[in-house]
Amino acid sequence: MKLASEVDAVTIENEFINPDGLAAIEKCGHLLLPSTATLRLIQDKFVQKETLAKAGLSMPPYAAVSSVADLQRIGKEFGWPLVLKKRRNSYDGKGNFTVRSEAEATEGWKQLDGERNALYAEAFCPFERELAVILTRSRDGQHAVYPVVETVQKNHICHVVRAPADVSASLAAEARRLATKAVESIEGVGTFGIELFLTKDGKVLVNEIAPRVHNSGHYTIEGCVCSQFENHVRAVLGWPLGSTQMVASAAVMVNLLGASKGPGQPNGVGEALEIPGAHVHVYGKAVSVTGRKMGHVTALGNNVAEAEKIAQDAAAHIIFGATA
Amino acid sequence: MKLASEVDAVTIENEFINPDGLAAIEKCGHLLLPSTATLRLIQDKFVQKETLAKAGLSMPPYAAVSSVADLQRIGKEFGWPLVLKKRRNSYDGKGNFTVRSEAEATEGWKQLDGERNALYAEAFCPFERELAVILTRSRDGQHAVYPVVETVQKNHICHVVRAPADVSASLAAEARRLATKAVESIEGVGTFGIELFLTKDGKVLVNEIAPRVHNSGHYTIEGCVCSQFENHVRAVLGWPLGSTQMVASAAVMVNLLGASKGPGQPNGVGEALEIPGAHVHVYGKAVSVTGRKMGHVTALGNNVAEAEKIAQDAAAHIIFGATA
Repeated sequence: MKLASEVDAVTIENEFINPDGLAAIEKCGHLLLPSTATLRLIQDKFVQKETLAKAGLSMPPYAAVSSVADLQRIGKEFGWPLVLKKRRNSYDGKGNFTVRSEAEATEGWKQLDGERNALYAEAFCPFERELAVILTRSRDGQHAVYPVVETVQKNHICHVVRAPADVSASLAAEARRLATKAVESIEGVGTFGIELFLTKDGKVLVNEIAPRVHNSGHYTIEGCVCSQFENHVRAVLGWPLGSTQMVASAAVMVNLLGASKGPGQPNGVGEALEIPGAHVHVYGKAVSVTGRKMGHVTALGNNVAEAEKIAQDAAAHIIFGATA
Repeated sequence: MKLASEVDAVTIENEFINPDGLAAIEKCGHLLLPSTATLRLIQDKFVQKETLAKAGLSMPPYAAVSSVADLQRIGKEFGWPLVLKKRRNSYDGKGNFTVRSEAEATEGWKQLDGERNALYAEAFCPFERELAVILTRSRDGQHAVYPVVETVQKNHICHVVRAPADVSASLAAEARRLATKAVESIEGVGTFGIELFLTKDGKVLVNEIAPRVHNSGHYTIEGCVCSQFENHVRAVLGWPLGSTQMVASAAVMVNLLGASKGPGQPNGVGEALEIPGAHVHVYGKAVSVTGRKMGHVTALGNNVAEAEKIAQDAAAHIIFGATA
């Protein structure tokens, strides 16, 4: 409340905030963007699915899960494996459990503590690739839509983002259309990351929306005329949105993940900086944890392969969590 | 001393700091870059000239001035007009006075308070254009030299920077050679701005060095692979220097100067942001003063004219110091 009374607008960089607390800011007439109405439609991922489905967006089948028996019934309907998820506070695979058979339903329910957490299930989507679109929506409903990118995930964590994605113009257009519709359906203002599946039969499905600047958009800092961060600020402040055009033919971002538990300062930054064109970002987190996002490297190039080689070469030098 | 004991290195963004105070940091074994030895050779502009002259660099004639009679004698030698300057704490034309004739010598002496301030005189250089080079020098003497740019000054204040300067390859090489030698002569570590004159007979002369990131290098934020700011940090921390290559054919920066005394928040930012490709920087200074540097706009383009149109169009909208 003190912050809100001193600034033009309040925004968030993390969606795991109690909306009831944030609502107090709005009640006093301060500007909060994205609004708690938008956040309420996002934070509960089952509600998010319902909202997107109502807007006519295609997505893998999903269902709320209220018991082990319920989960077993849904598994029969969707087929095994399916992904059991917490409705709230899950990210980067935390709060997800892949249930491979009816026999594993009890294990999944226990792992995610179904007695205490609201859960839902999603049919496993046999996707060919994962795509993402960063999109900024202004207060007056204008959209700045960034290029469709390909994201490479391992263990539910984003490792690499390739911009632009190597997909046909019509698939790219469909991905951008879905992303736009998704953010419209929640009346989002600011920058949003929309994760999509490209299925093996060439369909684009919405996976989920993040109501904030997104890992799949970090490449826009060097790669686009106006970054996802600047456009977020522009949107929240009611300013016109900036160009989402790329400044090079291709950009690739490689995440720097904690290799082990240890100090947050990396080794190898000097070696990484030897590589021309490698843009090294270290987040300054105090502690490295295995798999934790500690930084990223972006490189531009004439094509994705060229940019990826630079980014990967630099990233390979940087180790988080090792003792010096 | 408290800061120095908590960090890897201390650097400066302003050269008007008492070097005796800074020397205490060095005496305790902390790293200060650029060093006080470098700063002492820069802060007194007469000493700076002497140092550059000793290194064999060409520059307009100059002389220390100890009295009005001295100034009149120097004027006879150099010819009128000449530029009378304070040896210390002068920038953006503050501390400069152009003496147009022997009769004006007394006025110049009074304006700059020669009884209290050490002064020197420089022959007026009938330059065709002003050039500048940003250069970062590493702890081990490596140089990252940025493209030669043209700077357009009015009333001794930089208004526009055009990158690259429209000069021949041999002139550009000479400008970069002089800049490199200048920073070597003061054993500078970090980013330096070297201002140069291109004379009407096609010679390049050194005007002065700033021991810090420089206004003529702000275009490198969007215009070059590695900005003058990142390279400064790299140099000071002992990391390898980044590429100074431009990411577009041309970049132009236009300064945003205070139009009058008033609040530091500008009008017209929204209109400026409507212009695609205009990168608007507002420094957040509390108060606008006529002619004070309050921000800048950079634009990239296929040529300087294209970039300059975008930057000027955007800059024209932004007014500092007017009441809303």
